[in-house]
Amino acid sequence: MPARPLVIRGRALAQGRLPAICAPLVGATLEQLLDEARVVTALGPDLLEWRVDFFGAIADIRQVLAAARALRDAAGGVPILFTRRSRREGGQPIPLDEDRVVALYQAVAASDCVDALDWEMESEPRHLEAVRAGAAGLPLVLSFHDFQATPDDAALAERFDRAARLGADAAKLAVMPRSMHDVARLLAATAAASERLAVPVISMAMGPLGAASRTCGGAFGSALTFAVGASASAPGQMPIADVRQAVGALQRAMDVPPVA
Amino acid sequence: MPARPLVIRGRALAQGRLPAICAPLVGATLEQLLDEARVVTALGPDLLEWRVDFFGAIADIRQVLAAARALRDAAGGVPILFTRRSRREGGQPIPLDEDRVVALYQAVAASDCVDALDWEMESEPRHLEAVRAGAAGLPLVLSFHDFQATPDDAALAERFDRAARLGADAAKLAVMPRSMHDVARLLAATAAASERLAVPVISMAMGPLGAASRTCGGAFGSALTFAVGASASAPGQMPIADVRQAVGALQRAMDVPPVA
Repeated sequence: MPARPLVIRGRALAQGRLPAICAPLVGATLEQLLDEARVVTALGPDLLEWRVDFFGAIADIRQVLAAARALRDAAGGVPILFTRRSRREGGQPIPLDEDRVVALYQAVAASDCVDALDWEMESEPRHLEAVRAGAAGLPLVLSFHDFQATPDDAALAERFDRAARLGADAAKLAVMPRSMHDVARLLAATAAASERLAVPVISMAMGPLGAASRTCGGAFGSALTFAVGASASAPGQMPIADVRQAVGALQRAMDVPPVA
Repeated sequence: MPARPLVIRGRALAQGRLPAICAPLVGATLEQLLDEARVVTALGPDLLEWRVDFFGAIADIRQVLAAARALRDAAGGVPILFTRRSRREGGQPIPLDEDRVVALYQAVAASDCVDALDWEMESEPRHLEAVRAGAAGLPLVLSFHDFQATPDDAALAERFDRAARLGADAAKLAVMPRSMHDVARLLAATAAASERLAVPVISMAMGPLGAASRTCGGAFGSALTFAVGASASAPGQMPIADVRQAVGALQRAMDVPPVA
């Protein structure tokens, strides 16, 4: 089957073309977050990812909800992916245990101020189940990050499949390549998963070696690429304008009808 | 070892960064060829490829030599790769047998009006040997094209290796992908060959599916990408400006210092 775009609030991102461009927001204070959101939104991303693990007041649920509301207004209609990245998978240290993080997800989802949720597929089943049950209809990205290496081919396929099996609305893998062969393997695994699974897949090879995956991943079936508006949230993210130009060039080239 | 740039007249193309950008010239008359050369040269390619099989007067060696001289002047210092693509590998029909094509190569090389030669590694050994012997010191790209499919992994590796074994100064493979998996395989084979061989490698996956190889191939070790200045010479070639932007974005992200 053809690779699928992310659908949020009933609309396919980027008019259904792959990949949509997502810009991370990493503000530590409400003021920084909103300033960042305004700067980044002006660059025209298809999606914003609020990396709430960077938010200093993450332990105060009322402040988080107030920030979500203010962010929704600042985003001017650009949908928001709500993400707490765990320390284990490359996120910031936070003063919350997993039960409280789950409660935060449920409250934010219920507030309807964000449009999608990211949760790590490696988390405990009961936490994953609680996030899914409390998603209030929002699409759930189940993600996996390896900042050390690129799992072997079988493990890459298994990760994509596991996300789908666990009920993901999108399956996301971010890996660290140690060679360009690793990057090629990630692209191949992405192409295969995008044909095999009924949900969108998202992938990226991080760091300098992985840059090609951020501009070309969409051609291999990745529904989303992360690009820098104001600040990067992971190694290797490129500026939005660079990614948009490269993606646009590829899309124009791939639209050409096949030559006999 | 690190991937190698093409070196022509003692200088690494594109300051040693991968990939250099090559624009094909496909004019049928001298006037068309020179007009095309002026238009294309203004776009700043690193290399021009004169596809002499498109040249109507190819059977008249004096006209070919005169065109080579005029082309050298029109190219304003951009080096010229001289290529007769055979019908079997996607070129135009020409009224010359292989012995006369070899004689044409020898005469053009001796004229010193071009800077590199492309010859197909599938040609008869005696012809290949004659071209190599008559190359007059010009670098020799030994090429292989498959317009139907992408050979399997072992065959891709063998083709790269064969070119090197046959004395190529650069080994070029152009294949037709039938899936994005084929594109990923070509990129992996390119990365491996660029690490294994002592000469530069050049690769591309043709057609719309292969577009990613034209913008990202350099990251995987390909020394050259073909892009359209005025007219395409193979399916899937993208505009020079698009390729340059995409390549530049990747190079900035990968922060690769020049090799030479």
